[in-house]
Amino acid sequence: MDRITPVVLCGGSGTRLWPRSRPSAPKPFLRLLGEQSLFEQTLARFGDTAIFAPVLLVTGKDQLALVEGQLGESAISGIIVEPEPKSTAAAIALAALRLPGDAVMLVCPSDHHIADNALFCAAARQSAALARAGWLVAFGIEPTRAETGYGYIKRGEPIEGGFRVERFVEKPDQARAEAFLSEGGYCWNGGLFAFSAGIFLEELARHRPALSQAVRAAVAGGKEEDNRFHPGAAAFARIEAESVDYAVMEQTSHAAMVEANMGWSDIGNWQALRDAREADAEGNVVRGTADLLDCRNVMVDSDAPRVSVVGLEDVIVVVDGDEVLVTSAEGAAKVGKLKGPQGK
Amino acid sequence: MDRITPVVLCGGSGTRLWPRSRPSAPKPFLRLLGEQSLFEQTLARFGDTAIFAPVLLVTGKDQLALVEGQLGESAISGIIVEPEPKSTAAAIALAALRLPGDAVMLVCPSDHHIADNALFCAAARQSAALARAGWLVAFGIEPTRAETGYGYIKRGEPIEGGFRVERFVEKPDQARAEAFLSEGGYCWNGGLFAFSAGIFLEELARHRPALSQAVRAAVAGGKEEDNRFHPGAAAFARIEAESVDYAVMEQTSHAAMVEANMGWSDIGNWQALRDAREADAEGNVVRGTADLLDCRNVMVDSDAPRVSVVGLEDVIVVVDGDEVLVTSAEGAAKVGKLKGPQGK
Repeated sequence: MDRITPVVLCGGSGTRLWPRSRPSAPKPFLRLLGEQSLFEQTLARFGDTAIFAPVLLVTGKDQLALVEGQLGESAISGIIVEPEPKSTAAAIALAALRLPGDAVMLVCPSDHHIADNALFCAAARQSAALARAGWLVAFGIEPTRAETGYGYIKRGEPIEGGFRVERFVEKPDQARAEAFLSEGGYCWNGGLFAFSAGIFLEELARHRPALSQAVRAAVAGGKEEDNRFHPGAAAFARIEAESVDYAVMEQTSHAAMVEANMGWSDIGNWQALRDAREADAEGNVVRGTADLLDCRNVMVDSDAPRVSVVGLEDVIVVVDGDEVLVTSAEGAAKVGKLKGPQGK
Repeated sequence: MDRITPVVLCGGSGTRLWPRSRPSAPKPFLRLLGEQSLFEQTLARFGDTAIFAPVLLVTGKDQLALVEGQLGESAISGIIVEPEPKSTAAAIALAALRLPGDAVMLVCPSDHHIADNALFCAAARQSAALARAGWLVAFGIEPTRAETGYGYIKRGEPIEGGFRVERFVEKPDQARAEAFLSEGGYCWNGGLFAFSAGIFLEELARHRPALSQAVRAAVAGGKEEDNRFHPGAAAFARIEAESVDYAVMEQTSHAAMVEANMGWSDIGNWQALRDAREADAEGNVVRGTADLLDCRNVMVDSDAPRVSVVGLEDVIVVVDGDEVLVTSAEGAAKVGKLKGPQGK
């Protein structure tokens, strides 16, 4: 059986891990957990060459140098360089058009954390089997809290190796998120997908014909240099930016899901990062130099100055160059609303 | 009637306003409130030459340059330079020995804040009248909370222009502090005193003969240069370090007090400083550049980096060079226990 082709999407900088993540230091390339960046961890996840073919990367021209700087020894088949960000439907369509029609694509963001690689590989094989059977497969993550920052998937009837998707649900408010949890049968949408390249393109053409044609035109007008593929910029500019969830997964009648409880986190804000890092007996997490007195569940992340904290609980302190961030764990989701991450 | 001679004690650096206060930048000389340092504010308090004679300063050799740098145009009669710190009984005795026996001394720390100068002057005159009548006078501050960081004075029977002191009470625990407040008749000991120089020396000789003799020997062996008096170092080294409260005020049968509700604060920690600064409608206080989102009663004090704070209440953030302090308002009293202020 053919190996799975990982398609790694590497765009966007994100504002919610500001001040560590900045336009010059986007989230995927930061060493937030352990010694590797999230991007490096993502590439390392496909090390088993019995399962995975070389990785196809899709990134933006602003991120290309960062991507190349962290490729290391990873086996990649090429890099598609988008002239501008156009969301995930276009990025995946580009990759699908550059692959054989019967290739099974495993689409992965480059800025998520997955703690258990064995479970990830098992879910990847399971999703690939469904993809070969014609399904468009989403990875569902069992929810552990009433999170309002994620989309949800309502599980449908069981099929061989997984479930049908009853429906996708956009980010809910607090009350709905709590109802999902108590009702059961809902998973977080982990942003990982598997499908056959040909079937994805068919479904895209069916539900988003204009988007499909615009991407084809950009590929037709593109050029390849040293394993880097550059879509035609003029055609690319006309592409409508839509997420793959909205453009394809919510439209198709062949949506399926696998359950993948593999210690997934999108590291979507500082609270999520704190939770993914190892804490001491008091729940405190320190990177850099810190002096904590009467503290619980405090995270300090400092690139240079010593940070001394007294008498606090569930507070996060980040020092990065000329910026200091102090936030409650709960407030971490609002960091993007500060002036700093908006470039003010 | 002779004018009052202010005796300003200017020693010690204090650790509870770390990292702003450091051995190289002691608390009295920091511009913590308004444009003047607490030391400059203290000197400015004696501007009315109808009431006050020129100030006599007592400081340590390590602080002399700082004192001289902030004297400005203030009228001073001299500076006594202690070879080493020996607490307040010795410092006041030095000043008393350098003044005429009938001089009325008004002893003031140089690192307290007094918001209402008119009330201060009124209390100074009142205390001086009592001092001329032979009393040793303490300034009592009406307590506004069950503070455990201050000594207390139990008010005794009324006398002309004030009250007898029933007794001095050392820093109480929380339960006793609360009992003082509900019982009434207790004041905070503000650390300001008035007495005749001669009577102070008599009482010191009576209750602490060894300390009295050691200070006299240090003065006898001292030398004056350019208005700076340097006590003899060898004799000075033999002085026992005792507070004036303990060595004299608690011992004498002539202790009196005036009530002085003049907006006094010893600015003893960051919470006290926050309370003394002007806050905005949400109770937030900012010095330097800050960006506050969903915050209440937060103080930011930064010498350079921008400090962004999200979703916190009653938290204080201080940035000073290579040190960042984040403390709960309640935890501010424990800042001195951190490694930084202990020079570690």
